[in-house]
Amino acid sequence: MKIKEIGEFGLIQKIAAMLPPPHKGVTMGIGDDCAVFELSNGKLGLLTTDMLVEGVHYSKEFATPYEIGWRAMAGNLSDIAAMGGTPRLVLISLGVPEITKVSWVEDLYKGMSELAAAYGTDIAGGDTVTSSQGVLNIVVWGEVEPSQTGYRSGAKPGQALLVTGDLGGSHAGLEILRRKLQLLPEIKSYPVEKHLHPVPRIEAGRWIGAQIDHGALTDSSDGLGRDLKNLAEAGKVGFRVYLDKIPVHPSTCKVAEMLEKKPTDFALQGGEDYELVFTLSQEGLAERLIDFEKQTGVKATVIGEVLPPEAGIQLQDAQGNCQTLSGFGFEHFSLQSKVSLSNYLLN
Amino acid sequence: MKIKEIGEFGLIQKIAAMLPPPHKGVTMGIGDDCAVFELSNGKLGLLTTDMLVEGVHYSKEFATPYEIGWRAMAGNLSDIAAMGGTPRLVLISLGVPEITKVSWVEDLYKGMSELAAAYGTDIAGGDTVTSSQGVLNIVVWGEVEPSQTGYRSGAKPGQALLVTGDLGGSHAGLEILRRKLQLLPEIKSYPVEKHLHPVPRIEAGRWIGAQIDHGALTDSSDGLGRDLKNLAEAGKVGFRVYLDKIPVHPSTCKVAEMLEKKPTDFALQGGEDYELVFTLSQEGLAERLIDFEKQTGVKATVIGEVLPPEAGIQLQDAQGNCQTLSGFGFEHFSLQSKVSLSNYLLN
Repeated sequence: MKIKEIGEFGLIQKIAAMLPPPHKGVTMGIGDDCAVFELSNGKLGLLTTDMLVEGVHYSKEFATPYEIGWRAMAGNLSDIAAMGGTPRLVLISLGVPEITKVSWVEDLYKGMSELAAAYGTDIAGGDTVTSSQGVLNIVVWGEVEPSQTGYRSGAKPGQALLVTGDLGGSHAGLEILRRKLQLLPEIKSYPVEKHLHPVPRIEAGRWIGAQIDHGALTDSSDGLGRDLKNLAEAGKVGFRVYLDKIPVHPSTCKVAEMLEKKPTDFALQGGEDYELVFTLSQEGLAERLIDFEKQTGVKATVIGEVLPPEAGIQLQDAQGNCQTLSGFGFEHFSLQSKVSLSNYLLN
Repeated sequence: MKIKEIGEFGLIQKIAAMLPPPHKGVTMGIGDDCAVFELSNGKLGLLTTDMLVEGVHYSKEFATPYEIGWRAMAGNLSDIAAMGGTPRLVLISLGVPEITKVSWVEDLYKGMSELAAAYGTDIAGGDTVTSSQGVLNIVVWGEVEPSQTGYRSGAKPGQALLVTGDLGGSHAGLEILRRKLQLLPEIKSYPVEKHLHPVPRIEAGRWIGAQIDHGALTDSSDGLGRDLKNLAEAGKVGFRVYLDKIPVHPSTCKVAEMLEKKPTDFALQGGEDYELVFTLSQEGLAERLIDFEKQTGVKATVIGEVLPPEAGIQLQDAQGNCQTLSGFGFEHFSLQSKVSLSNYLLN
């Protein structure tokens, strides 16, 4: 059996099944945005890692080394945000051909270092090796109070479903770069910026974790559709999503139109937005979201509600028509199409 | 300027120079076997990562996936041992082509998982991606008491210099595999085993850290010569090494002879032995080393002493002839020859 026959998720399931159960003190192994484990001071340690391969996850053609570094760091810090945590320390492994310019590597580190420094996070080591294909692996270590930790499994029926910022922008930016779309600068700049310089929602994650009624929390790295499936599975719940409530930036809508796609498809399938997807109880929500925006500088939008598991994931349009997510064409999330989505960069 | 012009160490220096100084609480950034940072419970957190690239650090031709996984895990756990710490948690990033057999990946994880489990260490997540060249990145998180942490910088003139186990065996094993050397099984088995199934010295590292007079501590991953340079630089000391005291296994000597090399060259330049190199004061040393062997199941050998920095690194043979390490042909440690050493696997 080849990996391509079972896909990335199939492979992860197989690996998870063969590993011994984690020891006491490991609160979360495989299955959330970070590994979570007890520290003897009562706090929880968070550990996350991501591997980016040249030609699959980044391309020297469409992004400067600074931008590649920034995006890679944003993706990892976002996993800490998705637990409600604070990032503390970063290790970086880099594999590049020996003929790579030193200045290219320095610019890559500059992108990573500037974003990490903005959150008081230190790059404290790593590994540099020779490889024919470029590869970048980032590890982030963070901390969080146990009561403020946001797991994927926390959603409770009756809670509101929310997202920060807007969705689909990163995918729109990628399409602009890949297809060299001719657009006015005022249309182009937002999605391209969102793709090349995403900002992890660290402050937002901490605000959410600090709400005593916080439910589920994750980050939108593979598209809202995938996120909802993850939250539904982990929390044994269902969702109703109001498609017209999903925040999509006007420029993202323009790009979707140009490509004859629905803007919500970009939001549901696009990925790499690094926004937070979370649930909170409805009490006093409107006032709390005003406080949220004031504290974090980011808007949060209610896009639906948590239902019992038997409801599945319902996507309801403005006319009240409902589709379930599984009937919505989500074979997109097999390894092949995920890779081919990323491979847009290569075409 | 290309990376190959300045080598791996030159590149690391450039990167280190451009990063902002670490925050309070980060005890060690770049420059030791692990990043070290304060936890609020008074313990120190340890974080280490290594990237292994197919064709550079491992070859499917000479090792089974189980062996590749085991060796990779051993190298990372060894970095925790080299701080006197206890490994707690592991994250694994794996990049392989989609046509890779699932059973190959399972066997790789089996090798990693069995060694980690032997130390009560959990594999708690990671990342799996598609790449044309295989790449494996391991991260280990560990803990250690501050007073029991063994840094590279701890050597004090007058202390004894010691190593655990024996050196050069892994390199001899690699030569046997690479050159398909025809040897009796009783000669062959030790070096090959040492190369394919190295054992990290976790218990030994903890014993050393617990000695109130412990000085420097590191692991022998790039050969004793490189280790001594690291300890001399970090601790601002010199060393005298008695070449005839360096423990080399009889089978390793046999392989060296066959290849018309000195066994000590294998020890000094070979690497990947994952033994510990450390310093202790001379008081009661003989009795303490008996206790060491009883507690850890490993032998420790005094191979020299710590000198003031102006002495440099002196290598003294059985006849009393002395050479300094810099005059001993250690241009081996430039990136090119380091890579070509690893590339033995490719030839």
